Amino acid sequence: MATDEAKKSNTNVKSGGKKKEVKKETGLGLSNKKDDNFGEWYYEVVVNGEMIEYYDISGCYILRPWAISIWETMQTFFDAEIKKMKIKNCYFPLFVSPGVLQREKDHIEGFAPEVAWVTKSGSTDLDVHIAIRPTSETVMYPYYSKWIRGHRDLPLKLNQWCNVVRWEFSHPTPFIRSREFLWQEGHTAFATKVEADEEVLEILELYRRIYEEYLEIPVIKGKKSELEKFAGGLYTTSVEAFIPNTGRGIQGATSHCLGQNFAKMFEINFENEKGEKQMVWQNSWAYSTRTIGVLVMVHGDDNGLVLPPKVASVQVVVIPVPYKDADTQAIFDACSETVNTLSKAGFRVEADFRDNYSPGWKYSHWEMKGVPLRIEIGPKDLVNSQVRIVRRDNSAKTDIPMAKLTEKVKEMLDDVQQSLFDAAKQKRDACIKVVKTWDEFMEALNQKKMILAPWCDEEEVEKDVKARTKGEMGAAKTLCSPFDQPELPEGTLCFASGKPAKKWTYWGRSY
Amino acid sequence: MATDEAKKSNTNVKSGGKKKEVKKETGLGLSNKKDDNFGEWYYEVVVNGEMIEYYDISGCYILRPWAISIWETMQTFFDAEIKKMKIKNCYFPLFVSPGVLQREKDHIEGFAPEVAWVTKSGSTDLDVHIAIRPTSETVMYPYYSKWIRGHRDLPLKLNQWCNVVRWEFSHPTPFIRSREFLWQEGHTAFATKVEADEEVLEILELYRRIYEEYLEIPVIKGKKSELEKFAGGLYTTSVEAFIPNTGRGIQGATSHCLGQNFAKMFEINFENEKGEKQMVWQNSWAYSTRTIGVLVMVHGDDNGLVLPPKVASVQVVVIPVPYKDADTQAIFDACSETVNTLSKAGFRVEADFRDNYSPGWKYSHWEMKGVPLRIEIGPKDLVNSQVRIVRRDNSAKTDIPMAKLTEKVKEMLDDVQQSLFDAAKQKRDACIKVVKTWDEFMEALNQKKMILAPWCDEEEVEKDVKARTKGEMGAAKTLCSPFDQPELPEGTLCFASGKPAKKWTYWGRSY
Repeated sequence: MATDEAKKSNTNVKSGGKKKEVKKETGLGLSNKKDDNFGEWYYEVVVNGEMIEYYDISGCYILRPWAISIWETMQTFFDAEIKKMKIKNCYFPLFVSPGVLQREKDHIEGFAPEVAWVTKSGSTDLDVHIAIRPTSETVMYPYYSKWIRGHRDLPLKLNQWCNVVRWEFSHPTPFIRSREFLWQEGHTAFATKVEADEEVLEILELYRRIYEEYLEIPVIKGKKSELEKFAGGLYTTSVEAFIPNTGRGIQGATSHCLGQNFAKMFEINFENEKGEKQMVWQNSWAYSTRTIGVLVMVHGDDNGLVLPPKVASVQVVVIPVPYKDADTQAIFDACSETVNTLSKAGFRVEADFRDNYSPGWKYSHWEMKGVPLRIEIGPKDLVNSQVRIVRRDNSAKTDIPMAKLTEKVKEMLDDVQQSLFDAAKQKRDACIKVVKTWDEFMEALNQKKMILAPWCDEEEVEKDVKARTKGEMGAAKTLCSPFDQPELPEGTLCFASGKPAKKWTYWGRSY
Repeated sequence: MATDEAKKSNTNVKSGGKKKEVKKETGLGLSNKKDDNFGEWYYEVVVNGEMIEYYDISGCYILRPWAISIWETMQTFFDAEIKKMKIKNCYFPLFVSPGVLQREKDHIEGFAPEVAWVTKSGSTDLDVHIAIRPTSETVMYPYYSKWIRGHRDLPLKLNQWCNVVRWEFSHPTPFIRSREFLWQEGHTAFATKVEADEEVLEILELYRRIYEEYLEIPVIKGKKSELEKFAGGLYTTSVEAFIPNTGRGIQGATSHCLGQNFAKMFEINFENEKGEKQMVWQNSWAYSTRTIGVLVMVHGDDNGLVLPPKVASVQVVVIPVPYKDADTQAIFDACSETVNTLSKAGFRVEADFRDNYSPGWKYSHWEMKGVPLRIEIGPKDLVNSQVRIVRRDNSAKTDIPMAKLTEKVKEMLDDVQQSLFDAAKQKRDACIKVVKTWDEFMEALNQKKMILAPWCDEEEVEKDVKARTKGEMGAAKTLCSPFDQPELPEGTLCFASGKPAKKWTYWGRSY
């Protein structure tokens, strides 16, 4: 019953004033709506939600504690899982010498334009310019060559948590496309392709779990086309998410089988059981702080961030609603008690006791930050030995007897977690369009769909589709060929080339 | 009883051969001795112990899993402690624009010669050169100025785990002095100096605990001289360790009170309760991967690394010793059972079942890596339902009934942990020399002592001491003035200037 009291006690707000007015007066709201102006909405919500601060170097962003705590939760999960797989953490240098950077030709062609170069220290020019890692294949593999001698040195499975730099010039976007970002990069070497193939999928499953079990974002597992695969690798698998508002796919994380290409260039050989010299099979795989951007884009709404309970650094915020003439101390005590009870039960909970903000302001503030549950305690709640719980995701309000607090909070957090996934999946699924012809394809593309189409799997055809769809919004390209393939009746033709189709593939514009 | 059997079963070794011969034949040993040639010994032990791999860019090193796991253990401890202090993690960019880098004059003077500059991306020259952070005061504080408005925004307490770059040209040494290193850097702002002063010491105590309770290295807490304090700060506190072999002090970690110098330069102001504009008081504090280098230097011996159990990623290694004609399978089973029992009890334990190495080779290998306890299981151990446990730190061998395995391993690991500290403290203490005159000082310096001397605390006098002791070995300087001050009788004179002494201060050569 706290909400009405809050409005009355909020002296900044006219009695019965609408929420919008509160925001206007307190300067808290978003000036852009997600459905009207998605791009501006996104820039605003990451800043107002206190995840990002803009930095004075373009394309670089400050990741504030509200974002980093989400990163740390994912890191804790993933790090424990890869340790179970006997993958070990290490740390290779930030810097790469030009010689090794250029060793794998396709690879460097993919990254060269984005490499940042150090050419001076203090006021001294360096004799040899030094690159900052855009990724660490070329940093690491000369040492894999040194460390791997015989079959007993295999598999070699390393990972590092680090920053990388890609000096891109197009459209920097917080989390999604930034010049420096944080990630993990795993680099493994095996005696056989079978082992490498198996690990590619094991890691991809962990990436799916990050998206679907932590961030509550549905993703599609699949294989990238030849044109879209990792530069220098054999094949790339990915989890692909989709942003309904922009109608763009977004690569969530990638798990590459590098085959033996790098092994050849970096001479990573081993002697097998029979004493024969062989080349290793390699994988590399990564996910980055981009995950957080996808989270914001998928779940956020016109009131700000919406965080899934599992990754929210504050799962429950408790707000006292001290109605005029009420026993303020008793209300504050009840808030503290609520925090204690929930903390002891293992929830991440905070009370907002600030005396310079009204309850209404606090509601908006914590909504903006996306805290999954808000607990309001006012005089009537005290009398009735209850609290009011408000869900961030759907604004549902429930009065809960204090005696059932822990149990109900657990239930509601679980429900919020699941509801976020269900809602996101429903929206995503509504964007998927199955097409069979070029006309259907173009119609779906104009409707910003994620398009599933039968394809001949030829690189030239993908290039052709790109060329034919080039425009203001960006060209369409393949997102992935899903592992989960619908039936492809014999005689089905490629939507673009008219040749026999080999597989179903997702197409669309993408980030 | 396994050792003798090991020698016999080791077909590479002459019966009764000494350990040294084993090593020679297997190429495992160190060719330098710690007491004879400390510098070379150190380079050799970090590589052979598989902590470091040399990298093709001078001053950069690869931190292998054996080192990173130690870093992670310290990180887990420290991160949990600062979170209890309500310090939050964040991530600021790697890059700094020249404008802000130069805002605090003393600060930039301290770092300018070591700053690495990015001037190119791809093949394009950048309009504005961009620095790589040597530390993040100037990166962060413009935003502190933005975020801090009123007294309710204080304290602001942030930390980040990241890499920094200092392009030094003198004597790179793995962990101790490298061009890129990993660290945490905390940056906090308070309304009052009292709060800042208090936090400086709280953090310093955490640094002491890392050294004394995890790495088992005795350190001295104290205050740096004006000459040695952080560039641009008000005062610097540190934990100082000492390396007896080289007779050099080493700054273990620093906790700085920055005073209001940066607040002034970066305009970090707030409105206090009375509505008056005031400047914040700031701290910054850091410890780095240097800790691992100190660990190696203090505890390592002629057989390799010696790791304290708390930070060792493998605390116990189990080695089967399959005597000829013995029941190899039964021995292997007993090893597996031992690993299971100890794993379940929470110890970090591994068995070395490799069939291409002799037990003797494995002993040397795990000694080199510094694993605290080795368990040997041979036929006689099976018969007697026992295992042999060998301590890495003192080579003591004990036969333990299988029934008491968990209990005894716990006892022995605790004892190793404590013994390492006791031994290190004994050695360190034997190096401390109290002097009162210049002659005594010079004699102690020549004996590579850590010198405690009464000092007038004048900057010019420290400069003079540096000038007078300049030489091949490097000049002497102040290490710190210990918080724990011996009595200073009235009339005591400065050892160097003859003026009245103000405090006892540690002096010596240093890293």
